[in-house]
Amino acid sequence: MNTFGNLFRLSSFGESHGKAIGGVIDGCPSNIDFDIDFIQNELNRRKPGQSKISTKRSEADKVEILSGVFNGKTLGTPIAFLVWNNDAKSSDYEQVRNLYRPSHADYTYQQKYGIKDYRGGGRSSARATISTVVAGAVAKLILNKIGVQIFAYVSQIGNVKLNKNYKELDLTKIEDNIVRCPDNVIAEKMISVIDETKKSGDSIGGIITCVVKNVPTGIGEPVFNKLHAELGKAVLSINAVKGFEYGSGFKSSEMNGSEHNDIFYFDGNKVRTQTNNSGGIQGGISNGEDIYFRAAFKPTPTILIKQDTVDINNNETVIENKGRHDTCIVPRAVPIIEAMTAMVIADYYLINKCYL
Amino acid sequence: MNTFGNLFRLSSFGESHGKAIGGVIDGCPSNIDFDIDFIQNELNRRKPGQSKISTKRSEADKVEILSGVFNGKTLGTPIAFLVWNNDAKSSDYEQVRNLYRPSHADYTYQQKYGIKDYRGGGRSSARATISTVVAGAVAKLILNKIGVQIFAYVSQIGNVKLNKNYKELDLTKIEDNIVRCPDNVIAEKMISVIDETKKSGDSIGGIITCVVKNVPTGIGEPVFNKLHAELGKAVLSINAVKGFEYGSGFKSSEMNGSEHNDIFYFDGNKVRTQTNNSGGIQGGISNGEDIYFRAAFKPTPTILIKQDTVDINNNETVIENKGRHDTCIVPRAVPIIEAMTAMVIADYYLINKCYL
Amino acid sequence: MNTFGNLFRLSSFGESHGKAIGGVIDGCPSNIDFDIDFIQNELNRRKPGQSKISTKRSEADKVEILSGVFNGKTLGTPIAFLVWNNDAKSSDYEQVRNLYRPSHADYTYQQKYGIKDYRGGGRSSARATISTVVAGAVAKLILNKIGVQIFAYVSQIGNVKLNKNYKELDLTKIEDNIVRCPDNVIAEKMISVIDETKKSGDSIGGIITCVVKNVPTGIGEPVFNKLHAELGKAVLSINAVKGFEYGSGFKSSEMNGSEHNDIFYFDGNKVRTQTNNSGGIQGGISNGEDIYFRAAFKPTPTILIKQDTVDINNNETVIENKGRHDTCIVPRAVPIIEAMTAMVIADYYLINKCYL
Amino acid sequence: MNTFGNLFRLSSFGESHGKAIGGVIDGCPSNIDFDIDFIQNELNRRKPGQSKISTKRSEADKVEILSGVFNGKTLGTPIAFLVWNNDAKSSDYEQVRNLYRPSHADYTYQQKYGIKDYRGGGRSSARATISTVVAGAVAKLILNKIGVQIFAYVSQIGNVKLNKNYKELDLTKIEDNIVRCPDNVIAEKMISVIDETKKSGDSIGGIITCVVKNVPTGIGEPVFNKLHAELGKAVLSINAVKGFEYGSGFKSSEMNGSEHNDIFYFDGNKVRTQTNNSGGIQGGISNGEDIYFRAAFKPTPTILIKQDTVDINNNETVIENKGRHDTCIVPRAVPIIEAMTAMVIADYYLINKCYL
Repeated sequence: MNTFGNLFRLSSFGESHGKAIGGVIDGCPSNIDFDIDFIQNELNRRKPGQSKISTKRSEADKVEILSGVFNGKTLGTPIAFLVWNNDAKSSDYEQVRNLYRPSHADYTYQQKYGIKDYRGGGRSSARATISTVVAGAVAKLILNKIGVQIFAYVSQIGNVKLNKNYKELDLTKIEDNIVRCPDNVIAEKMISVIDETKKSGDSIGGIITCVVKNVPTGIGEPVFNKLHAELGKAVLSINAVKGFEYGSGFKSSEMNGSEHNDIFYFDGNKVRTQTNNSGGIQGGISNGEDIYFRAAFKPTPTILIKQDTVDINNNETVIENKGRHDTCIVPRAVPIIEAMTAMVIADYYLINKCYL
Repeated sequence: MNTFGNLFRLSSFGESHGKAIGGVIDGCPSNIDFDIDFIQNELNRRKPGQSKISTKRSEADKVEILSGVFNGKTLGTPIAFLVWNNDAKSSDYEQVRNLYRPSHADYTYQQKYGIKDYRGGGRSSARATISTVVAGAVAKLILNKIGVQIFAYVSQIGNVKLNKNYKELDLTKIEDNIVRCPDNVIAEKMISVIDETKKSGDSIGGIITCVVKNVPTGIGEPVFNKLHAELGKAVLSINAVKGFEYGSGFKSSEMNGSEHNDIFYFDGNKVRTQTNNSGGIQGGISNGEDIYFRAAFKPTPTILIKQDTVDINNNETVIENKGRHDTCIVPRAVPIIEAMTAMVIADYYLINKCYL
Repeated sequence: MNTFGNLFRLSSFGESHGKAIGGVIDGCPSNIDFDIDFIQNELNRRKPGQSKISTKRSEADKVEILSGVFNGKTLGTPIAFLVWNNDAKSSDYEQVRNLYRPSHADYTYQQKYGIKDYRGGGRSSARATISTVVAGAVAKLILNKIGVQIFAYVSQIGNVKLNKNYKELDLTKIEDNIVRCPDNVIAEKMISVIDETKKSGDSIGGIITCVVKNVPTGIGEPVFNKLHAELGKAVLSINAVKGFEYGSGFKSSEMNGSEHNDIFYFDGNKVRTQTNNSGGIQGGISNGEDIYFRAAFKPTPTILIKQDTVDINNNETVIENKGRHDTCIVPRAVPIIEAMTAMVIADYYLINKCYL
Repeated sequence: MNTFGNLFRLSSFGESHGKAIGGVIDGCPSNIDFDIDFIQNELNRRKPGQSKISTKRSEADKVEILSGVFNGKTLGTPIAFLVWNNDAKSSDYEQVRNLYRPSHADYTYQQKYGIKDYRGGGRSSARATISTVVAGAVAKLILNKIGVQIFAYVSQIGNVKLNKNYKELDLTKIEDNIVRCPDNVIAEKMISVIDETKKSGDSIGGIITCVVKNVPTGIGEPVFNKLHAELGKAVLSINAVKGFEYGSGFKSSEMNGSEHNDIFYFDGNKVRTQTNNSGGIQGGISNGEDIYFRAAFKPTPTILIKQDTVDINNNETVIENKGRHDTCIVPRAVPIIEAMTAMVIADYYLINKCYL
């Protein structure tokens, strides 16, 4: 149950402080140019310590490819990869060894498995998203060939909101600031909020918006495997995500059909819609318009403020973190959102090829 | 790609105006008392024509079991079932035969398959949820044995909102009114909104809240198959759903960790949390608290107001519906939300048995 | 676990004396001409009572399509079908209600499920292969489009063996006699053996050889999903099959590499092999030569001779069958072998399209 | 398509001369004592250079665990492992870079993928069975807890046959000789045949028999996932296997029902069968008797005798191997057969737990 995808599939592995984090990508077509620099760069966008607002942990997070690639091309066979866990200070976690950290997964893993790797969250750590980002980067190599582009950006941190439609934004500027918000004025405000939150030892949530351009029409499956349902699952599987909406999303619940319906028209020979409340997906299948969605992130549960809790031995106790952690994981989650999205689109693109 | 679930699996089939809608449930344990009246009753909660606010189509929707049950008990073998499509007036759809109805799936199905069953939406019709409701009812029979209870209700229609936490509501009163809102005052307002919308020939969206009680701790899978990710996919696969949030949901994005974290305490020997922003799920695994989530429904795209559109032969044209349709499908979606939820919980409950 | 295939998938259902036997085919491409007469004819080749050597039970076995087909074309959506169980004389089975019939599945089903449908074998009955034959016929409709041809025939009944290579036979003559052996002299001997066995109330086994022509090169998956491994699973899943070998098969164990290796040569531009010990598959992937394999069938366990056995209540007892049964099920298994083969080839053909 | 199993699943990776061979085991229950010495020992039974009759290549083949194990116990999370490819002399393969080696997978891989890793067979190499053996060893750790025992041995090399039923053999003596035949007299003859074949530069095939004791009753799934069908697929997926038969196997085709049927009787309270032509499986489900089957291996295609062939550039040419290869891979395949068997039994054992 650690596998994602149907034809393009990632089987991921790794605990936060185990030997390595990695995965096996199965179903990647052969003869794709394997751009290892691009993949490493995607991983760098995710890694801790990349800016003043992310954790000070400096993890090298260098990806190593073990199979499936030969002379710079994919072989069509499984692509196994790993990132060694170098900077794992397990001693940092001795204190929490027996504790159930509030709103972390310590308690539920113990209940499910009867055992847990207490070091840094073990399998529930966001370090597991390293595998996601690598596989997503490979998926992007496939999507590049058909022109699909994915842009994710931070549209809200705490109560600082970017109240603009994505069409008003210059999506090439996302990486221009450390908070990954393509509006520099709002970005500054977001950074201020994070800085202030950091000073108080607290954490803060946010929202990421993602836009996918040039998805071919006809991608997605009826009934249970609707394209947006799979995107929803993909996004909700990312640590700290609490909500997903696409197109008009929650706002659609207040709307009438006459204002919500996207009217078809001809743009030359191409069937297009005048509005895009559908978010590029109708009946679970892409219609060629931009796909866009939003993902809500809760504040990371690790805070430097003392909290009551209980431990594994049935004692009430207190937890006080001193580790190095992100005040706000949302900016670092941008490449992760893109990666899960890329995997879904690539997978459903490949599925579609079977039916034509 | 018309199958849902891992161990408890529904393979569904059927077009709106084909011969029958149905499914095959595989993985149902043997020796479950098969309460056909309960199953039919669940289907009756879904069916059209059940009240003045739903469509006037009167579909008998009587479920017929073909296999997997013997002398009132499940055999452990596949349970096939179907509902014949009796009231299918295909002639109603001759007019839309070549049209792409706005915000329906006509265009995307045509693009994907190069063919479509134009009668009543074909496979993309909400009639496909008949299969879901039957399979969900069987899942409930399993869950009943371990005390799991599922309550879904309408918490918003248009801009009429039920601004109460589910704990303030009497969830046994959901079926007391035709809009399935457990607060009679708000329910009346919702019914008024639907009535007014109906008069104008328009449609309207809404929100369903779902609460699951007594889920055992430890259910759910790490990383990609988190319990809430699977619930999200399940819910997003339902026709017209545009958003999903669980626990604190989108509001969490504005919160600090210190207010969001759910503090553990002992309730006797049992580990509980003081708050439940986690929505009963931590790290993707159930923690024994109530699971709750919200699903946003767009207004149904079929309206009785004239709209511009295009047809399959590259002509611009106009669509004017005269068929019988729901002004608001949200009340009828309540049993569907429950059904998808029941399937997910039953499936992950069975998965967990393998690991213990 | 009642589903077969990856992209072209059959989810089958039905007990021998339940209401119906059927299945749902998912993943059939759209716009295939749906030749219902061909499908029914395949089913007729399987059905009981078709000749003097098969059981006298006359089952109409008329297939009914419930979904997935519109105006004679496949829609790309699930194709559900069923065959009603008309001639089910459950009273025939009252006598065996509590018995464990020797070498049948009564005991193991009771052990697995704690319940069994004792009428005619329930789910373990060979009537379940009705679903297989229908799905296989649909797979053949796909394969016809790319020229793949499948020929199965009876090559042994008891100790009467057809000692000829398939290349020496006229495979168009398989249906010319009731035992489905393309050599009329041997066929007569086989029929004699069956007749004699029938008179003695006993049953007899046999072997089916299957040849698949014009399979495109490159079909099959490395390591676990080798084409012959999937064919082996497919064939071994058929009732009464005890062995599978492809190409040189068991004889290869006595051979040297120098005699076994298939030497490549050019036939015009095409790479061919001088011999075909590989059976058309190398490294699990088709090489364009004929695929051929053999399947061994045990004698059907139902015999009209008295046998000792035990019952469900821990008593020793005796069983004496009087039902109508086949003396030799091998001739009727020919279309079943072809059906499972067609499903595998169609499935792997579709998989291959994703990678190109 | 490089994954095997349902709940206990191996996703394998690796090319013969890539960086590493390995896999990810998902679905292993938590809290299993992880005996790394046992696992390494199983790998040592497979490795080349272990005796005078196997290839002189000395591969260290030391397994390294990357995840899923903590303080000597399984965590219930994916167990990733790898074996580095140290002794990979790629230069040995420069000569065959463009050749299609007879009865190898060079041609079919090139046809399927349009690219191949020509070094040592790439993904089609038997080195991929390293992953199998490691995962099988982990499966054995699970099976040990319920008393299941698996014994595979060489029962034929070329025309030297061990004509004894496994019940007449002392299965604890399998590892007593280098050919892994538990009868020392026959073993000597087998070794002679291999030695002679080696001198002539040729290769030779053989047969492995496998016996599984103490399998609980009720394991296996009806219709498509019969226990023997899955075992057949598992075994046929091993390099060089050309045939599989279980219980009475191919011989059953010559038998009458009255001699083939296994008569039930009571052994104390336990239902047993007097004979075991069923091979411990009836209707695809285990009946508690010994499971046994045979697998036929073709002679390894690599021989030191000159052969005609063609190359990738459409030339006729000649191949003359000088590499280090096994004359007979059958003795080294014994632990591989056991491993695939262990994976199937463990997987179906876990599946069964969900239904009880």
